[in-house]
Amino acid sequence: MTDHLFAGGVTTPRGFQAAGVRCGLKEKGLDLALVYSAAPAAAAALFTSNLIQAAPVQVSKRNVQCGRGRAVVINSGNANACTGEQGDRDVEETLALVAQGLHIDREEVLVASTGIIGKPLAMDKLRRGLAEALASLKEDGGDAAAHAILTTDTTAKQVAVTFQLAGYKACIGAMAKGSGMINPNLATMLCCLTTDAAVSSALLDRSLRLAVDDSLNSLTVDGEMSTNDCVLLLANGQCGNPVIDAVGPDFEAFTQALRTVLQAVARAIAMDGEGATKLLLVRIINARDSEQARRAAKAVANSLLVKTAVFGRDPNWGRVLSAVGGSGVELRPTRIAASFAGIPVLAQGHPVPFDPAAMKAALAEKEIVLSVDLAVGSADARVFSCDLSYDYVKINAEYHT
Amino acid sequence: MTDHLFAGGVTTPRGFQAAGVRCGLKEKGLDLALVYSAAPAAAAALFTSNLIQAAPVQVSKRNVQCGRGRAVVINSGNANACTGEQGDRDVEETLALVAQGLHIDREEVLVASTGIIGKPLAMDKLRRGLAEALASLKEDGGDAAAHAILTTDTTAKQVAVTFQLAGYKACIGAMAKGSGMINPNLATMLCCLTTDAAVSSALLDRSLRLAVDDSLNSLTVDGEMSTNDCVLLLANGQCGNPVIDAVGPDFEAFTQALRTVLQAVARAIAMDGEGATKLLLVRIINARDSEQARRAAKAVANSLLVKTAVFGRDPNWGRVLSAVGGSGVELRPTRIAASFAGIPVLAQGHPVPFDPAAMKAALAEKEIVLSVDLAVGSADARVFSCDLSYDYVKINAEYHT
Repeated sequence: MTDHLFAGGVTTPRGFQAAGVRCGLKEKGLDLALVYSAAPAAAAALFTSNLIQAAPVQVSKRNVQCGRGRAVVINSGNANACTGEQGDRDVEETLALVAQGLHIDREEVLVASTGIIGKPLAMDKLRRGLAEALASLKEDGGDAAAHAILTTDTTAKQVAVTFQLAGYKACIGAMAKGSGMINPNLATMLCCLTTDAAVSSALLDRSLRLAVDDSLNSLTVDGEMSTNDCVLLLANGQCGNPVIDAVGPDFEAFTQALRTVLQAVARAIAMDGEGATKLLLVRIINARDSEQARRAAKAVANSLLVKTAVFGRDPNWGRVLSAVGGSGVELRPTRIAASFAGIPVLAQGHPVPFDPAAMKAALAEKEIVLSVDLAVGSADARVFSCDLSYDYVKINAEYHT
Repeated sequence: MTDHLFAGGVTTPRGFQAAGVRCGLKEKGLDLALVYSAAPAAAAALFTSNLIQAAPVQVSKRNVQCGRGRAVVINSGNANACTGEQGDRDVEETLALVAQGLHIDREEVLVASTGIIGKPLAMDKLRRGLAEALASLKEDGGDAAAHAILTTDTTAKQVAVTFQLAGYKACIGAMAKGSGMINPNLATMLCCLTTDAAVSSALLDRSLRLAVDDSLNSLTVDGEMSTNDCVLLLANGQCGNPVIDAVGPDFEAFTQALRTVLQAVARAIAMDGEGATKLLLVRIINARDSEQARRAAKAVANSLLVKTAVFGRDPNWGRVLSAVGGSGVELRPTRIAASFAGIPVLAQGHPVPFDPAAMKAALAEKEIVLSVDLAVGSADARVFSCDLSYDYVKINAEYHT
């Protein structure tokens, strides 16, 4: 039984419809997405741990507690964060309009927003957009929806996986928006997942937490955690499998498929990080424990000096070591080892000579792996990130409020 | 009694000589500095908490324990970090050569290095350089020494302060090297201080810890902590004051003067951060406690999104709030307030309209203050930082190993 990853999206699983329309919150392009399950569905979601939370985050947190969810509405162009009571009222009106249009309960609607912070939503535009989105829901609307949630992303991020579940062919589809303000926890500003598997809301939540841990929570673009990060997952059971309501082989199969999708999403977000030219994979091995492995990996992945070195194709491994040492994790200086772009540069705490031509070729690749062996334990971690280029500065210095 | 800050350096206090020479460790320019006190002197020092510590850091840590110090030797161009046993031997030889040349004990010599990590020191060059430096020690050599410790810095950082101490006119002088890999604790890669005040080594250590706390430890350029950071302080007592060997008014006066010098150094390092175009001062007020205030201030000061917004002259205060919220400190969302470049943008959790022309003018200044009132307690913190420009990426992507 192997999971099959392919180019699909949120309408690939059976029984989901979606729409992506333009309502005018962004300067150009689609900016309002709606995803809908015709059948009742279980829902699970994870949210930013930023203490400043946008109004839609607060409302979706409340709604997902009922365990059911049939619609996800996402706007780009405005985060509806730091918008006071007006922001709350605008989310409630959005819920009401979507629930009314789809004849579902308000609490079955999850809302997410991404974009500028501190500006009220242009509700006149949003109202018109919601009416249009409701009217244009389609079984092949996933692609339009995936485009409507982007901000500074250069490509839409969509993927799907099919897998066997108790003899049934099940599917999970995803769309995500990444690019900037990407750091655990959570990693992506927005990720919406759909599945036609039948999973109880309690097990759906558990599976999502497990799968996010070594995917979106192991992703960092710029060390920033946003006010709006969320991952939303709807499961409508249309593939026919017996409901997963306990841990067991079916739960494991579902969680593994979810992990496969989320790792593909994490990789796509890192590769499309603001201004990124390369995917950066940081591996820490033989750490004291998982927490220390993760901490060291994030320190390297967030190091501006490491990220600019990778952009500049310079095997400056001293910066990697400095970042690991600065993270405060336990390490054995006389036993530590490291490789840069897959080529050993340090062993037993001593520099290892390497072939400059081979290093130059390795650094020209699109995907750069940096590994450090801390030589104190047996815990590993891997973090997805990207390099830091002139364009990161350009994008963020010229993104005007 | 006010402290008088002026353009001086490590040879401004009585009884100190210095030299700055070129030995060839850097591609061009002076790269070896020597500072010497003709009279016996007390010494104190603080070092990087990075777990990967350069050979000179380890040796200076050992030497300063004797409480005496008469010479500081600093090379730029090579950090002598991650260099194995060879690195240790090279430092010991440096100690021996300086001690022999000055007829002092080896343990009275403190050593520091800055530059590339993981390459052995070119000792043939260093030996010739040390001989030349020993031969060229002068009472006005501070300026040459200050230039010899720079790497990517664009200006030398030197300052001095005079102050009254028990009726005597005392002086503290400083030189520092900053620019990149700047983050608490410690903040600057290298800072060498001299004073003609008489202070016992125990009180000198205590004073240094106090003064560093709200100066160099409140400084961040890029969130990186280096393998070589250190602050070295020699006190030779040549101004004539009774030795400060207990806490009291003299200790307070000395510590305040030291703080004044170190804050000026912190400001100079931030202003000359790699690629910096602006000094960024982040103030957090009404935090639960000092630790939380500092943590929130550092989160804002290290935020790439905040730093690029300041570079782009964009009042994107949402990024400031997001960074504060992401730092995990306690805050009251409905009472939080903020100002950007001195202009109120948020009050009682709600956006405050501001005059765009006034904001534009404020953002054109060289010094930008960002303030956030967390509205939960009474602790404050201030952190020195700078913006993030294209040139930071350029400098660090093109700094070749």
